[in-house]
Amino acid sequence: MSPGKLAAQVAHGAVTAAENTRKRKPEIYRGWLAEGQKKVVLLAEDEEELKGLKERAEREGLEASLVVDAGLTELPPGTVTVLAIGPDYSERIDRVTGHLPLYK
Amino acid sequence: MSPGKLAAQVAHGAVTAAENTRKRKPEIYRGWLAEGQKKVVLLAEDEEELKGLKERAEREGLEASLVVDAGLTELPPGTVTVLAIGPDYSERIDRVTGHLPLYK
Repeated sequence: MSPGKLAAQVAHGAVTAAENTRKRKPEIYRGWLAEGQKKVVLLAEDEEELKGLKERAEREGLEASLVVDAGLTELPPGTVTVLAIGPDYSERIDRVTGHLPLYK
Repeated sequence: MSPGKLAAQVAHGAVTAAENTRKRKPEIYRGWLAEGQKKVVLLAEDEEELKGLKERAEREGLEASLVVDAGLTELPPGTVTVLAIGPDYSERIDRVTGHLPLYK
């Protein structure tokens, strides 16, 4: 993915995560916005890892959404590009993602 | 900016734009979500251009928010990184941004 395409995919995940959390955990959503809506972009190896992390996040009670690309530009249709977890307390998310490197 | 940093900044703009539009133009927000929350990431030259585009967007009645980086990682504090416009009807946004190249 080009940097612009990556940014659009991450933004898609962020908006979906925010919207789901606003509906399901409104106090966590409001606190996250009030504290500057922290986001951390991390790198996973492949689609299998993203799906495994999603299951693990859900077992921990975290919101987790996969972004699937429609395939109109750079990628084949149906490519899983991003897993958005949270927003939630950092220490809870770190239990699932703390081992991943920053996406630089 | 690294691609990961760019993605976080764009996501910040997208969530802010979504939240502001949800509050101020709820019908447009719901329509945008229902239609797959389209986003386009475009390239501007510098901070001056972003600020000029923000003024122009606001004169057209569009939501427009600048993202200012706190400067904890790659950038000097206070750097303006992103202008998020919308969500709104494509033809209205294109009037302001239609001349900009895609961010690749």
